[in-house]
Amino acid sequence: MSHIYLLRHGKVNGPAALYGKTDIEVSSTIDNEILTTLINHQDKFTQVLTSPLKRCATLAQNFSQQIKKPITIIEDLQEINFGDYDGRAFDDIPYTDPSIANTVGDDLRPWTDLERFWQNPVKYPLPDAEKLNDFYLRIKHAWQAQLTKYTDENILLITHGGVIRMILAEVLGLDWKNAKLFSQLQIGNASITHLSSNINPMNSSNDIKVHAIAMPLSGLTADE
Amino acid sequence: MSHIYLLRHGKVNGPAALYGKTDIEVSSTIDNEILTTLINHQDKFTQVLTSPLKRCATLAQNFSQQIKKPITIIEDLQEINFGDYDGRAFDDIPYTDPSIANTVGDDLRPWTDLERFWQNPVKYPLPDAEKLNDFYLRIKHAWQAQLTKYTDENILLITHGGVIRMILAEVLGLDWKNAKLFSQLQIGNASITHLSSNINPMNSSNDIKVHAIAMPLSGLTADE
Repeated sequence: MSHIYLLRHGKVNGPAALYGKTDIEVSSTIDNEILTTLINHQDKFTQVLTSPLKRCATLAQNFSQQIKKPITIIEDLQEINFGDYDGRAFDDIPYTDPSIANTVGDDLRPWTDLERFWQNPVKYPLPDAEKLNDFYLRIKHAWQAQLTKYTDENILLITHGGVIRMILAEVLGLDWKNAKLFSQLQIGNASITHLSSNINPMNSSNDIKVHAIAMPLSGLTADE
Repeated sequence: MSHIYLLRHGKVNGPAALYGKTDIEVSSTIDNEILTTLINHQDKFTQVLTSPLKRCATLAQNFSQQIKKPITIIEDLQEINFGDYDGRAFDDIPYTDPSIANTVGDDLRPWTDLERFWQNPVKYPLPDAEKLNDFYLRIKHAWQAQLTKYTDENILLITHGGVIRMILAEVLGLDWKNAKLFSQLQIGNASITHLSSNINPMNSSNDIKVHAIAMPLSGLTADE
């Protein structure tokens, strides 16, 4: 049996915004706090995998060096690309109540774009962004190719909130188009989602189970 | 804002079986371990709610007495009724590989019943059991009537794995017929699922968020 721990990166060092492809960093203070907790539980991990973006990869590289375990960067496990709004601070986007947006001009379009996207990300994609369907397929393929091949490893994968949601959708057979997976299910910064993977000897199928979703990092201390 | 902590009862004191309506107990040793952890975090809770079944209610009563907070028993938040198989030890059910069950006699029917139920609980309900649809509606109505009315409370609800899954289906808009919610999503004994409930002043709607699912009980110690 293998265990796979999906760690969302720490809070990024920038104003509130949609951060997807934007390669923003986590402050070294926050990364060091997470690193200390991980080192205290280093016996749990035999390999480190990471998104290529700095908010994940910097911590992953520091941790793999400290515990002298292999690291693999998986390009396809980076966050969704939010297009024109990616990395643009919410405070810099002019706000008007979207309920009156039909009666007004172009300067009110941005918040209408965002509100519609939250309510139905498939029907109202953001301009020049990655389609949700393409994102789901990218994560699904990377998951199947890169993460279900292990038979006896304990994997730490440092990645993003959107990526963790799409992996859960794949494993639990959820509808990846469901907007509530994004608006109601919180995947906190530095939270851990714990999965196990077990090849069934009866039919060689891979039985993936979800043990905990978005638990605080210190949940690693619990008996399992 | 209110917080709602869904605690699944401890491991029951009996052989492996489907326990639904069967009123089996948790050993006092296990209940006392959980009680100690809860008392260490008693400041988090202002009210105790519980299923009427002993595996939940005994702990709930002990805890509410210790911390001198009100307790409410909610009849409708008990587990699904598994009918003829409820409480019947798996070891007492004759086993034959279901793939050859068509070629054999009646004594092999029970495992075929169970295998089919796991794969598609809506299409293949267990004999004399509560229908999954009825169970979902029971939990949905109890949730809406009993748990979304609080505006500034911290609720501990001690209940069952099936009940927690149905609450998650309701809050996250998941398909309650999805068999993987039962077979792949583990809700461990004595695990905590943390939700928050916030009345939106803009439109008086109730915004429920899911912060962590099935985290080990000691996850309560984390910053939140």
